[in-house]
Amino acid sequence: MSRSILVINGPNLNQLGQREPHIYGHTTLDEIKAATMARGKALGLDVDFRQSNSEAEIIGWIQAARGKTDGLIINGAGLTHTSVAIMDALLAVDQPVIEVHLSNLFRREEFRHHSFISRAATGMICGLGAQGYLIAVDAIAELISKAGKA
Amino acid sequence: MSRSILVINGPNLNQLGQREPHIYGHTTLDEIKAATMARGKALGLDVDFRQSNSEAEIIGWIQAARGKTDGLIINGAGLTHTSVAIMDALLAVDQPVIEVHLSNLFRREEFRHHSFISRAATGMICGLGAQGYLIAVDAIAELISKAGKA
Amino acid sequence: MSRSILVINGPNLNQLGQREPHIYGHTTLDEIKAATMARGKALGLDVDFRQSNSEAEIIGWIQAARGKTDGLIINGAGLTHTSVAIMDALLAVDQPVIEVHLSNLFRREEFRHHSFISRAATGMICGLGAQGYLIAVDAIAELISKAGKA
Amino acid sequence: MSRSILVINGPNLNQLGQREPHIYGHTTLDEIKAATMARGKALGLDVDFRQSNSEAEIIGWIQAARGKTDGLIINGAGLTHTSVAIMDALLAVDQPVIEVHLSNLFRREEFRHHSFISRAATGMICGLGAQGYLIAVDAIAELISKAGKA
Amino acid sequence: MSRSILVINGPNLNQLGQREPHIYGHTTLDEIKAATMARGKALGLDVDFRQSNSEAEIIGWIQAARGKTDGLIINGAGLTHTSVAIMDALLAVDQPVIEVHLSNLFRREEFRHHSFISRAATGMICGLGAQGYLIAVDAIAELISKAGKA
Amino acid sequence: MSRSILVINGPNLNQLGQREPHIYGHTTLDEIKAATMARGKALGLDVDFRQSNSEAEIIGWIQAARGKTDGLIINGAGLTHTSVAIMDALLAVDQPVIEVHLSNLFRREEFRHHSFISRAATGMICGLGAQGYLIAVDAIAELISKAGKA
Amino acid sequence: MSRSILVINGPNLNQLGQREPHIYGHTTLDEIKAATMARGKALGLDVDFRQSNSEAEIIGWIQAARGKTDGLIINGAGLTHTSVAIMDALLAVDQPVIEVHLSNLFRREEFRHHSFISRAATGMICGLGAQGYLIAVDAIAELISKAGKA
Amino acid sequence: MSRSILVINGPNLNQLGQREPHIYGHTTLDEIKAATMARGKALGLDVDFRQSNSEAEIIGWIQAARGKTDGLIINGAGLTHTSVAIMDALLAVDQPVIEVHLSNLFRREEFRHHSFISRAATGMICGLGAQGYLIAVDAIAELISKAGKA
Amino acid sequence: MSRSILVINGPNLNQLGQREPHIYGHTTLDEIKAATMARGKALGLDVDFRQSNSEAEIIGWIQAARGKTDGLIINGAGLTHTSVAIMDALLAVDQPVIEVHLSNLFRREEFRHHSFISRAATGMICGLGAQGYLIAVDAIAELISKAGKA
Amino acid sequence: MSRSILVINGPNLNQLGQREPHIYGHTTLDEIKAATMARGKALGLDVDFRQSNSEAEIIGWIQAARGKTDGLIINGAGLTHTSVAIMDALLAVDQPVIEVHLSNLFRREEFRHHSFISRAATGMICGLGAQGYLIAVDAIAELISKAGKA
Amino acid sequence: MSRSILVINGPNLNQLGQREPHIYGHTTLDEIKAATMARGKALGLDVDFRQSNSEAEIIGWIQAARGKTDGLIINGAGLTHTSVAIMDALLAVDQPVIEVHLSNLFRREEFRHHSFISRAATGMICGLGAQGYLIAVDAIAELISKAGKA
Amino acid sequence: MSRSILVINGPNLNQLGQREPHIYGHTTLDEIKAATMARGKALGLDVDFRQSNSEAEIIGWIQAARGKTDGLIINGAGLTHTSVAIMDALLAVDQPVIEVHLSNLFRREEFRHHSFISRAATGMICGLGAQGYLIAVDAIAELISKAGKA
Repeated sequence: MSRSILVINGPNLNQLGQREPHIYGHTTLDEIKAATMARGKALGLDVDFRQSNSEAEIIGWIQAARGKTDGLIINGAGLTHTSVAIMDALLAVDQPVIEVHLSNLFRREEFRHHSFISRAATGMICGLGAQGYLIAVDAIAELISKAGKA
Repeated sequence: MSRSILVINGPNLNQLGQREPHIYGHTTLDEIKAATMARGKALGLDVDFRQSNSEAEIIGWIQAARGKTDGLIINGAGLTHTSVAIMDALLAVDQPVIEVHLSNLFRREEFRHHSFISRAATGMICGLGAQGYLIAVDAIAELISKAGKA
Repeated sequence: MSRSILVINGPNLNQLGQREPHIYGHTTLDEIKAATMARGKALGLDVDFRQSNSEAEIIGWIQAARGKTDGLIINGAGLTHTSVAIMDALLAVDQPVIEVHLSNLFRREEFRHHSFISRAATGMICGLGAQGYLIAVDAIAELISKAGKA
Repeated sequence: MSRSILVINGPNLNQLGQREPHIYGHTTLDEIKAATMARGKALGLDVDFRQSNSEAEIIGWIQAARGKTDGLIINGAGLTHTSVAIMDALLAVDQPVIEVHLSNLFRREEFRHHSFISRAATGMICGLGAQGYLIAVDAIAELISKAGKA
Repeated sequence: MSRSILVINGPNLNQLGQREPHIYGHTTLDEIKAATMARGKALGLDVDFRQSNSEAEIIGWIQAARGKTDGLIINGAGLTHTSVAIMDALLAVDQPVIEVHLSNLFRREEFRHHSFISRAATGMICGLGAQGYLIAVDAIAELISKAGKA
Repeated sequence: MSRSILVINGPNLNQLGQREPHIYGHTTLDEIKAATMARGKALGLDVDFRQSNSEAEIIGWIQAARGKTDGLIINGAGLTHTSVAIMDALLAVDQPVIEVHLSNLFRREEFRHHSFISRAATGMICGLGAQGYLIAVDAIAELISKAGKA
Repeated sequence: MSRSILVINGPNLNQLGQREPHIYGHTTLDEIKAATMARGKALGLDVDFRQSNSEAEIIGWIQAARGKTDGLIINGAGLTHTSVAIMDALLAVDQPVIEVHLSNLFRREEFRHHSFISRAATGMICGLGAQGYLIAVDAIAELISKAGKA
Repeated sequence: MSRSILVINGPNLNQLGQREPHIYGHTTLDEIKAATMARGKALGLDVDFRQSNSEAEIIGWIQAARGKTDGLIINGAGLTHTSVAIMDALLAVDQPVIEVHLSNLFRREEFRHHSFISRAATGMICGLGAQGYLIAVDAIAELISKAGKA
Repeated sequence: MSRSILVINGPNLNQLGQREPHIYGHTTLDEIKAATMARGKALGLDVDFRQSNSEAEIIGWIQAARGKTDGLIINGAGLTHTSVAIMDALLAVDQPVIEVHLSNLFRREEFRHHSFISRAATGMICGLGAQGYLIAVDAIAELISKAGKA
Repeated sequence: MSRSILVINGPNLNQLGQREPHIYGHTTLDEIKAATMARGKALGLDVDFRQSNSEAEIIGWIQAARGKTDGLIINGAGLTHTSVAIMDALLAVDQPVIEVHLSNLFRREEFRHHSFISRAATGMICGLGAQGYLIAVDAIAELISKAGKA
Repeated sequence: MSRSILVINGPNLNQLGQREPHIYGHTTLDEIKAATMARGKALGLDVDFRQSNSEAEIIGWIQAARGKTDGLIINGAGLTHTSVAIMDALLAVDQPVIEVHLSNLFRREEFRHHSFISRAATGMICGLGAQGYLIAVDAIAELISKAGKA
Repeated sequence: MSRSILVINGPNLNQLGQREPHIYGHTTLDEIKAATMARGKALGLDVDFRQSNSEAEIIGWIQAARGKTDGLIINGAGLTHTSVAIMDALLAVDQPVIEVHLSNLFRREEFRHHSFISRAATGMICGLGAQGYLIAVDAIAELISKAGKA
């Protein structure tokens, strides 16, 4: 039986490749999407890959994932540090959640060291660039598989 | 002459009953809506009861209430702690505003102890679960009645 | 079978009506007492309404309430922000506790934003003036009724 | 060749003139728009003047301005103090950015003293009321002109 | 017509002369009382000079002074730094209030640098030992005299 | 020649055994009193064992102990964290003072980590339950014996 | 009738052009003076343009401006962040005051984010380099003109 | 043998009577000077009364007082909160030092609650307006007299 | 040509499986070692897998890795939060460094939210249990491969 | 059946008697060892008494105690305030742990008020000098005896 | 070719020898001057040695040193902790700067632990008394010599 | 009679010359050792120059120096900021102690601004690179010589 995951990307990630490439690299979000979906496919996972600048839309996606998907990957971008509402939405979801960040937040400005999303996530991967998404897919596949056995 | 109030519910409250019931209880938002409207009716108040995950939509509702309703009840949920913009919208409204929270915020995580909405509210009721809404209706009815006499 | 509640008022509340009326209003504590007892009676509750300037006396009242009353309403006034001992006394009581404040503490000085009593209360009502007491009676009647059924 | 700028106004600025006039004055946003466009015209600048209560919409406007306009003026209103996502969007724009505030934020509540937008702006103008917009137009015209020469 | 003032001394001041004389000196409270009453007499003031270890008793004295005395002098001792309730009592009194401390609090431990009483006092005198009481009597005589003329 | 010590218990300790037994255990204060007096007797110490909910009464007891007893044991309970006045009283006593707490304060809420009493105590014992009192008697017997020799 | 303004420059601004040009630019203070006076002339304002490294001298200038000039522009430089005395002098002046900074203080070290001068200024302009002075002249001309009409 | 004292007034006190009279009153510094000198004369003290806006000048006066005068009274005004150098100068003086403030600093902005001068002063008097100077003269006369006897 | 990596485990990780399994799981360090080496082998990496309770030994290993290995994986355990010296050692290494933690540090005690190692790491993976090591091997293989091409 | 305990002493305690005797007293560690072992013997406890300057060695001792000893007494000395790794080792041990300090940490420098070891200890004894060790033996004997019965 | 350095001494250093000798020692500034000039002469350096109580004068000296001297030694005394303006002046100087303090600031009051001057200095020497000046001369001679070779 | 000193170097200093040369320079520790020993020899001091990555080993060296050497120079490197135990060891040594750092800690990350070693050192030298060691030798020679005369 096929499994599915939802990958959520927060504000400004639609500009990857152009936006501050010394921090975020030259890969575009479409390239990351393609690679992520390929990795998911190889692991038997349907990947629904989305981006939004809207906190409300992201909350809606998380709510809708309830009972529909088997796991969530989220790069909250700027909302990571400010949205209690997204954290609350994630806390209500009964699935593995993996937080991803392209850059190593802990080597950047102080206010980026705190994440509300971390409080609602199973685990976090940061600083590994676009590869972080693929690793997150591997990790969530493993978590789903374990949950299936439990 | 009939009076009306607006009841605004913030992000994730549409999931009440399912979402972390050990914190928020098993009552659904529809059940709260029905009870709130009944209480309003008994007190001669038209109750407009809404929920949104969107800060912008909530701001729009507050702005539109100006001169249209006689009082506001608001459960800001996760936006309570982070939205200066909602606070600013409430500060511009010339009506009684009552802040409601289902749980007692002061027994939860530190970041939930601070509310921007409180700075713009007449009063606050928290920790009384769904009953808090009914009490808020009683309170706002009283405040509207006093304002009418003044 | 009749139920009873204890309403405790902290320091300086005996001066209501005279004391800083721009903050606390013109209603006296005797007037609040009369209204509170009437509301209790209407709901089948015996109301024991007291005031003290003494932390020790208030602790004694709370301890004595154990097994004697069915619920507590407390306006800790200035002790709200400073008394760990009252909080500890409330934590030992196995009844619903509702914290009441006449003014909205969150629109006043910073040191009034923190309440030790909140950590031991079921819920809190603030900013609704004398009406807050009546609402607290309604709320505790409901909580007692629920507890009775459980 | 004509130049163009985008002027972005954040939440609640659509209520200028009515909203807390002792702080924000009696001029409406439409009046500011007219004056700003006139000033732009006099300096050979097309002015696109907008308002939104939505963080997501504002981020979208900033992203779309990339390569389309020559400069940005932004009054973030309540989002000034809370939106990392708007700051991130501005950091990705390769144009002069001027932050404007009607009131002097530094004479108001503590939480209004910090601006995420300032970290991404070329300069800031505050406390000069509606005139601040006109001055910002003058300033950005100068910055665009300098950039054109460089 | 004769005027009267109340001089209130907080916890442990009954032990003056014996208690940490390197900080508080060798003069006893009785000696200070005698000197203070003599100074009052010379200025036409009846001096009621008291000491208590009880916050509640001190609050009671302050409340009773309302309309009975013309001015208050208070050395809150250890309660200075911890009692919001005494501050609240003083805020309700419509008379000049002078805060006195024997030692210079600002050269001692950090927690003694903050006084709740200062927020409710007309002025403060510290570090002048027993003489501080006499100076406070002079000052309050002047303040009462001014108030009488106003 | 016989020696004597005073054992002071602060607010709510009269409810031991009933009050939050998962934190404070099932032993009552009377049982602790009996055990403490027995231990004192075995070591040749008269033990005066008291409890009060009143800061003022406790201060009075400490003041009266001056020159009357040879050592003090104090469990300040909730007043531990808030009473500068009790600390000041202890600082004026020229005897060994041992602070006792039933629970390990450092594994509980943040505000219980700070003790004003510690600043005036010779030593502190916490987390050992009722046994802590017996140990404190042993320790103070030793301190008195040493002081006697010095 | 002609109007006059005083432009005050704080410590080290006499070294503009040489001092850390990557932060402050290559324009000298004499060049800024000439441009500022020209702008003032065009607007019918006499401009008195000064620089001092001395807090006392600057306070003296501000005091002397009382009743002599119609508006003040001040770049406090390093004293911006440390001088309560200059703030106090400005608070005593009954004229519009505009604070100017060449660089955007909010993108520099943390201690430069706080300004005592802001608490006494009508408005602030920063990050616009030498142009900021000209804009400040425009702004103060407008403020003086409004004040003239009021 | 005649004694002498130096009274030092910090920045902006030369503007008393005109400067923010709702805070500092209508009395001018010349009037305070006259009253202070009269009071000194009555007590056998030569009073040298000065004002300066300059930290350096004030330090010079304090240094010169060494061995020349018998006591110092200082109202540091804005320098109170910022000048370690004046504190250091006072620490080197072997005379009684009394700190005076016209207003009650503790009822004003947070940054006025801290005084470097307090760390070097014998005592402090605040909130008593111009009368505070006279009281300070009384106090220092007493301190000098005591020192003379010691 | 074969590549090699060093995997460093800090204090107490030798007790995995036994130590607080509700936090760290039941897998032993030997099992993790075996799995990690297998994964490395599959990717053509020699894995040197070690554990030490000693900060000094870990520093020595990091120093020795210079020029000997192609990448480092480190789980600093308790030293993560306290060792500047390990951070300094890592900063001197010219290889990719991946930080791993079994548990999600951000859902645990406050002091575990800060990592000195993060400041010297390329990226971080946490909350994924033993699987985190395998993912880290994948990630470092990719980083080494990229570095090889660059 | 005989029981055994391990007593661990941290850095610099090998220098007791010589090291800052005004703080730590004149008793040497060997004398404390002898007294501790004697006390243990009297209570039927084998006492293994050790000292190390090495965090790693101490962690090793704690790990080795697992299943070998019945209780731990630890004076962490300077490591008390800095070692998360020792705390983690103690958290993994299933035995009573008593923390001992010779001096009263709470009367010393601020950084000595916080102990990581306290978070993992059953109880704490401080300020009683060498006697603290004997009391800790008494206490742990009691705790072991209780655990044996449970 | 001869080289020259400027040695600047801040407020109150003209009182060395008399001022708090338990902290600053008995050597006078003239003695330090003589020794410093002798040391400079021995190393081929002209030493210009000055003292001022005035921040403005010190800023002026630093500005004038630009292009005139080869190195700066500065003991900012009380201005060390408060003067951003002196720091800014030093940041504009293109020479080695050595900060000197007679006492070890880090063993004194908390507010002396922070130095604005350190942010603009090449290095710092403290706690070595008058000898610190001679060492600073040695150090700056070396720095100048290196700079000459570079 | 010959004198001897011990020079202690903390973690990672064995990698000097290779490790982050933009911060620490290109000189190796062996070169510093040679220069330091030569300088010592010239001043009649035997220099024992060591490096360790181990806190425990460094503590052991400091303890062993007691009565064996005449002075200590220590560069604690990363342990500077974290080791209370090394500070305690130094506090027990009755010799002059000079703290050295190659870089100016106050121009680097915030956490490097605090040194536990400073609290136990006579003086500190930082920011002068390898030369700092030679200066420290000069300084300690002087301190030993003074101590010898005293």
